[in-house]
Amino acid sequence: MSIIKPTENGDHIVTKFISKSTWHLIEDKFSPFAKETLTKVVNFVINEAMPYEALYHAQISTDPATRWKIVPQCVEQLKQKAKAQGLFNLFLSKAHYPDHGVPLTNLEYAVMAEIMGRGAHFISESFNCAAPDTGNMEVLARYGNEEQKKKYLEPLLRGEIRSAFSMTERFVASSDATNIRTSIVQDGNEIVINGHKWWISGAGDPRTAIHLVMGKSDPTNSNPHRQQSIVIVPANAPGVKIVRPMQVFGYDDAPEGHCEVIYENVRVPIGNLILGWGRGFEIIQGRLGPGRIHHCMRSIGAAERALDLLLTRATDTKKKAFGKHLYEHGVIVQNIAQCRIKIDQARLLVLTAANMIDKTNAKGAMKDIGMSKVAVINSALDVVDMAMQAHGAEGVSQDTPLAATWVGLRTLRYADGPDEVHLQQLGKIELKRAPELWEMYRQNQELSKKLLEKAGLKSHL
Amino acid sequence: MSIIKPTENGDHIVTKFISKSTWHLIEDKFSPFAKETLTKVVNFVINEAMPYEALYHAQISTDPATRWKIVPQCVEQLKQKAKAQGLFNLFLSKAHYPDHGVPLTNLEYAVMAEIMGRGAHFISESFNCAAPDTGNMEVLARYGNEEQKKKYLEPLLRGEIRSAFSMTERFVASSDATNIRTSIVQDGNEIVINGHKWWISGAGDPRTAIHLVMGKSDPTNSNPHRQQSIVIVPANAPGVKIVRPMQVFGYDDAPEGHCEVIYENVRVPIGNLILGWGRGFEIIQGRLGPGRIHHCMRSIGAAERALDLLLTRATDTKKKAFGKHLYEHGVIVQNIAQCRIKIDQARLLVLTAANMIDKTNAKGAMKDIGMSKVAVINSALDVVDMAMQAHGAEGVSQDTPLAATWVGLRTLRYADGPDEVHLQQLGKIELKRAPELWEMYRQNQELSKKLLEKAGLKSHL
Amino acid sequence: MSIIKPTENGDHIVTKFISKSTWHLIEDKFSPFAKETLTKVVNFVINEAMPYEALYHAQISTDPATRWKIVPQCVEQLKQKAKAQGLFNLFLSKAHYPDHGVPLTNLEYAVMAEIMGRGAHFISESFNCAAPDTGNMEVLARYGNEEQKKKYLEPLLRGEIRSAFSMTERFVASSDATNIRTSIVQDGNEIVINGHKWWISGAGDPRTAIHLVMGKSDPTNSNPHRQQSIVIVPANAPGVKIVRPMQVFGYDDAPEGHCEVIYENVRVPIGNLILGWGRGFEIIQGRLGPGRIHHCMRSIGAAERALDLLLTRATDTKKKAFGKHLYEHGVIVQNIAQCRIKIDQARLLVLTAANMIDKTNAKGAMKDIGMSKVAVINSALDVVDMAMQAHGAEGVSQDTPLAATWVGLRTLRYADGPDEVHLQQLGKIELKRAPELWEMYRQNQELSKKLLEKAGLKSHL
Amino acid sequence: MSIIKPTENGDHIVTKFISKSTWHLIEDKFSPFAKETLTKVVNFVINEAMPYEALYHAQISTDPATRWKIVPQCVEQLKQKAKAQGLFNLFLSKAHYPDHGVPLTNLEYAVMAEIMGRGAHFISESFNCAAPDTGNMEVLARYGNEEQKKKYLEPLLRGEIRSAFSMTERFVASSDATNIRTSIVQDGNEIVINGHKWWISGAGDPRTAIHLVMGKSDPTNSNPHRQQSIVIVPANAPGVKIVRPMQVFGYDDAPEGHCEVIYENVRVPIGNLILGWGRGFEIIQGRLGPGRIHHCMRSIGAAERALDLLLTRATDTKKKAFGKHLYEHGVIVQNIAQCRIKIDQARLLVLTAANMIDKTNAKGAMKDIGMSKVAVINSALDVVDMAMQAHGAEGVSQDTPLAATWVGLRTLRYADGPDEVHLQQLGKIELKRAPELWEMYRQNQELSKKLLEKAGLKSHL
Repeated sequence: MSIIKPTENGDHIVTKFISKSTWHLIEDKFSPFAKETLTKVVNFVINEAMPYEALYHAQISTDPATRWKIVPQCVEQLKQKAKAQGLFNLFLSKAHYPDHGVPLTNLEYAVMAEIMGRGAHFISESFNCAAPDTGNMEVLARYGNEEQKKKYLEPLLRGEIRSAFSMTERFVASSDATNIRTSIVQDGNEIVINGHKWWISGAGDPRTAIHLVMGKSDPTNSNPHRQQSIVIVPANAPGVKIVRPMQVFGYDDAPEGHCEVIYENVRVPIGNLILGWGRGFEIIQGRLGPGRIHHCMRSIGAAERALDLLLTRATDTKKKAFGKHLYEHGVIVQNIAQCRIKIDQARLLVLTAANMIDKTNAKGAMKDIGMSKVAVINSALDVVDMAMQAHGAEGVSQDTPLAATWVGLRTLRYADGPDEVHLQQLGKIELKRAPELWEMYRQNQELSKKLLEKAGLKSHL
Repeated sequence: MSIIKPTENGDHIVTKFISKSTWHLIEDKFSPFAKETLTKVVNFVINEAMPYEALYHAQISTDPATRWKIVPQCVEQLKQKAKAQGLFNLFLSKAHYPDHGVPLTNLEYAVMAEIMGRGAHFISESFNCAAPDTGNMEVLARYGNEEQKKKYLEPLLRGEIRSAFSMTERFVASSDATNIRTSIVQDGNEIVINGHKWWISGAGDPRTAIHLVMGKSDPTNSNPHRQQSIVIVPANAPGVKIVRPMQVFGYDDAPEGHCEVIYENVRVPIGNLILGWGRGFEIIQGRLGPGRIHHCMRSIGAAERALDLLLTRATDTKKKAFGKHLYEHGVIVQNIAQCRIKIDQARLLVLTAANMIDKTNAKGAMKDIGMSKVAVINSALDVVDMAMQAHGAEGVSQDTPLAATWVGLRTLRYADGPDEVHLQQLGKIELKRAPELWEMYRQNQELSKKLLEKAGLKSHL
Repeated sequence: MSIIKPTENGDHIVTKFISKSTWHLIEDKFSPFAKETLTKVVNFVINEAMPYEALYHAQISTDPATRWKIVPQCVEQLKQKAKAQGLFNLFLSKAHYPDHGVPLTNLEYAVMAEIMGRGAHFISESFNCAAPDTGNMEVLARYGNEEQKKKYLEPLLRGEIRSAFSMTERFVASSDATNIRTSIVQDGNEIVINGHKWWISGAGDPRTAIHLVMGKSDPTNSNPHRQQSIVIVPANAPGVKIVRPMQVFGYDDAPEGHCEVIYENVRVPIGNLILGWGRGFEIIQGRLGPGRIHHCMRSIGAAERALDLLLTRATDTKKKAFGKHLYEHGVIVQNIAQCRIKIDQARLLVLTAANMIDKTNAKGAMKDIGMSKVAVINSALDVVDMAMQAHGAEGVSQDTPLAATWVGLRTLRYADGPDEVHLQQLGKIELKRAPELWEMYRQNQELSKKLLEKAGLKSHL
Repeated sequence: MSIIKPTENGDHIVTKFISKSTWHLIEDKFSPFAKETLTKVVNFVINEAMPYEALYHAQISTDPATRWKIVPQCVEQLKQKAKAQGLFNLFLSKAHYPDHGVPLTNLEYAVMAEIMGRGAHFISESFNCAAPDTGNMEVLARYGNEEQKKKYLEPLLRGEIRSAFSMTERFVASSDATNIRTSIVQDGNEIVINGHKWWISGAGDPRTAIHLVMGKSDPTNSNPHRQQSIVIVPANAPGVKIVRPMQVFGYDDAPEGHCEVIYENVRVPIGNLILGWGRGFEIIQGRLGPGRIHHCMRSIGAAERALDLLLTRATDTKKKAFGKHLYEHGVIVQNIAQCRIKIDQARLLVLTAANMIDKTNAKGAMKDIGMSKVAVINSALDVVDMAMQAHGAEGVSQDTPLAATWVGLRTLRYADGPDEVHLQQLGKIELKRAPELWEMYRQNQELSKKLLEKAGLKSHL
């Protein structure tokens, strides 16, 4: 059974989900392989994966004893299907990761990420394209040594294990890496880790085999960005203590979870150090860029789906109240239009950033990535909120994906750098243009005054 | 003397004015001719035209007796220069107007329009690319007969005369063309026009030679969109009475003005009818689309300039207050960042719409044009308002272009269709997707239920 | 141990929690009894009740088997304490309920409700002032007969039982009472109820003894507002089936819950009908007004607490990042200011509405109540959101009350009438002023024209 | 002929213009004299003054030669009428100015100021309650010596002369008084003034007899707030040069104007120094508080009038477009509702601040005044903007007061302290509560932990 119909007029199937005019703008940047893969992704998400959403949620155990031990079967089944169709690890661009990457540009993958983002988190996971594994695979592919790659990257790429990235710490402002307190100390051939982290996504998942743990190995180094190191910690190493799952609004996101974790005298072999002593800051710098783009595109997918739900709700004949269907109210029609504008603007911004990564690299696109992060998340929040409001109580319940989607988006307003920090950075980048502008302004004024003078007119400049 | 410096790293000069990443996204759609022309436009606007702004405003007469009779000389001088450089009528795309057009796509021209829009209205005029002439030239090129083209279109294309478009009526809601009351009646070989219009832009200009007047020639036609006709009325025809200039906020925009005009028994030859009886509505439908894109792109240019002014003001060392420069305040840095985001998103939306016109036509891009109109104008207003606020009193005065720019943008929130009307149209276009969404939703639910059932789980769907 | 200190300068203790200037505006409307009661309420909330919040949440069972069977002990202990201090049922104004009411005006109680609203829902419950019991007590006090009062109102007033209000239905737009489908049919001396409801707050609570069920007893009555009746249904009556708790974002609000409930051939004695056949609509009309005010005031209390948390977070010396404390960022200082403005404006609006209820009645204050509902909830949401954002991940977790507070507020944007419906009603009330305005306008124009004429000047009016 | 009808149900006539519920909240703070005066003010504004608006504007000369020399006659006529009715100088509260004040509280006057603010600036002037005279009269009444009072205050109070306040300087950020550059130097029995000011309101008015000029008399004083002095400069003193009128958007506000003024070796007698050397800063501190409240209340009056116009426009039967009247569009109904909410919230905030001034003084109400300033102006701008949008082109023209009103409000976002400065001050005032909050928080946590411990539960606090 096929939910989605092929398009009629030669348009690519993705134009059923993203704006035709946007597709017209970027289509010529898509390779035939990318177009074909995109078709597969659309079909997989709509026809294969999304019907599993209800089942997935129903299979999460409500019994505290098993809640963190069982992963709904369907996820692994979908992963096998996706792998069989060649739809695994699409996030890893060959241009940047020649050894393990897929021949897709960031722009091409961005559109696929949007489609994946229409569904629950496990749908990205089906493609082995879910955070935090994606960022961790990038770290290992870029900075890992051969042994680390063989032991950890390859099973990750095959979807056999999962992983956590352990950076955020309780009791300090750890978004500033110089505040990190976790200690990473060499002791002979071993490394000893002691620290108190929280919000470690995936740490609750029974499939999670490793934590990439950020800590301070050289806390008195005069260069504050050389104090940190990152080590690979097996999830089952003695001394790794999962304190509790943190809740996000009321969700604990079992079985993955976002856990409070204490590392108490955890010992790992010296070979588990990534890249070298004091390179931790450098690693996290490289980890964040493209990942933010993926979050953004998934967020747009989520917003598109929310708008779809808004449209169905607005035209639901059972929901006529006070003599009018919802779509007959001018206010809701206007809200729908504003959703469309917000989504299309947001998508264009992210695609531009993705293309900029392709044309330069993540650093060259830093400004565009930052703009996308702030603009997209906030726009998507607005769209989902409007859709929730149109749904009334149902919109905030477990019966639509809206509330959980909203919550996921809301966390992105502070995760990976809060809005406020991105905006300050962006503003400062703009301010760097000031000297050149002053020079243009000065010359313009000079010429203007001459022209006034020549015409015998008084200048108030 | 050259205000603008060539770029250093091979980037096109326009990347000094528009986002590099946006340019990277669209550059491959620019022909070599378009790139070259764009370079010329940038140089002309920055180095030639903008230094005349102060002089232009100083030369507008403050004496009521001459205010509407004198056009500052510099405009005609700039027009000659632009024509000599091959920069005339760039708005008229050869693809749509093979006889008179320039080999530029709408996308290519859009970027040029943005650059023109950085300066005062007379700068677009220098390129013979100023409203309402542009729309009128499109009407004559598309719908005019040979005689009309020869007599009116050609001098317009040469920049020898100017023109007005006379549609809006006092005392009725004339944005709905079926409310038009002006009567257009055949009397032998003549047409007699009687009507009361206002907001007729350019009607005050001594160079304006013709008014294209919309009226009802067949007010009882059962098809409300066949009641209207458009005729060409010489500005100096007996019975054409300029009642007064309307003010926009405090501006009268002399010498062009936006005038209240009464047509009292004005007689023109039958040959002045455009396209045919009852074709008026059809003509205005065709007139508006691309023109809105041009307004939008000029608005983005205006917003970019406002942001430039904001940046110079924020870094003005003379404006230190309470121990801090403006740029040291986090709030203004955040505002600058938000301006950048708003502008870049807005530009992408318009460029997408312009490209859609190229790929289909104005009708095919109707939705994109509508979205652009609403989003861009409001974003540009926000940017200009933030720039004004940073300038304090100076920002609302005659000493910066900000206040006049803001006012021009504000009028675009209702001109060419108010925001509210565009939003309703957009919302309704989205709502047309509902039946297909319902079908997808229905099938998804069916599959979901089967999966739950198969797993032996209760469904609450 | 006393958390709160007495004020120093003669101000009432409440000025530690609400704006001094607002207190100055309303203080002379407070009786000595009200001031004294308010002091007690402040002390009780701050010193007695709020320290129990952590314990309360820790005592909610996470085991699905007992989650809906156990109520944390502290609630009943606090209720006894509050009752002993004469702080029970303060919401019931003697002026409107002479038999059971407390000698407090709505204005006086409003300030107390704000203080109660600073804490979790169970704190209002401690005062026996929690929804849905409050509204149900009002219904029984106003519309119940003597037997109903004795049997149900009195134990409710004593805090011995709890209750649910069963109106919202699944599958229809039941905010429009004419869409209600639940059937209420007389069968001899009994009434038979069949229907499918959801979002029945309190239905999960083991203490809930009765449901007030709204249904249609006369579905073909030509007056659509005479079709409905309300009956009292014992929670343990055969046929009352709790299907599942609905979730609000991820919260199920155990042990009270918001449940899906099916009434299947439920039979109650004829004496359980409230007020009479066909009076259901009338009853719900009377039920909502003051309750909305209480929600609003509690929401302001919640917002004040969120601002308190924002202030502590902003000054938390442990949260220094990138060299600055949070309070050193201009943006957060501005956000704090905007929170203060939003809260103070919101409170003033509700107090004005509460006073209007006192001066007239709920109907006379309908407009003011509607305005409060829309303005206050949205302002409070903004404040809580800003506080969450300042807290980063902690703000959305179980470690602060912010996320749960936000969710509670968010539901109020559609509960008790969605924003959109209130705004349409308010707009229409304003539009009723139009005829009088037109008359004034007409006369003003007439006089204006005469004055111009007398001065010999042309009129463009 | 009387435009306004008496109210029917015993409500004060002002309830036709301000919310009934707000009036109910404050009515008992109005003395019988205040109520009677308020009645007179309402009648005067509506029946006497507002019909002169069209004539007033028509009588402003458009000829540059006379534009700044002629004041429309009607102003002086209205002043005589108002004086005869005892409606002069109502802004000057006897409580604060026992010698010259009127027996009205700030709260009482605030409502009157709102009514005055419904009309053009000259209407406040009719009551001798227009800025900058009001502030100047306050300065002279509070700080002037007997001779200054006799010579300048008394004719001002009688409405015989007008005045300017000369503080803002071109080329520096003079909102920070320490940046002032104008020099004020004693030379024997004379004071010599040299400086370059702009935005000097009223400096263009032929009736303006004096400028109160702020400058530095002691620029090297170690206390930066003791460097400034204020002197009274006759408008016709040699060396006082009016350079040009500044424009606000397109308005020059003739004949009063906001002028660029150069003081070149202007000499005045030593007796023209106000209060004493180095007291300038102290004087301006005292000048601003209540004046801001008046601005705010007038702004609310302006917003109310804009809403009235919006209501008449929405119900204008001539403005039916596309088959619907404006009021039939849900969006405009919602906008109307939001206008009502914004206005009522804004008014309550200002009235609370006015009452706080009465209960304490301007300094005690500083926070409330600041909140009012920011909230009210922005709300009023929103309301006027919505009204403009509903009017289409007419809304921005000279045919309604909306555009000019909007412009006046917009200037208040930076005048008397920009929004940003007020918000920073407000935020900092709030932050002062942090230590007390931390103490409460600490104690609450301590108690919470004890309770958890006692219950044998683990604490994550």
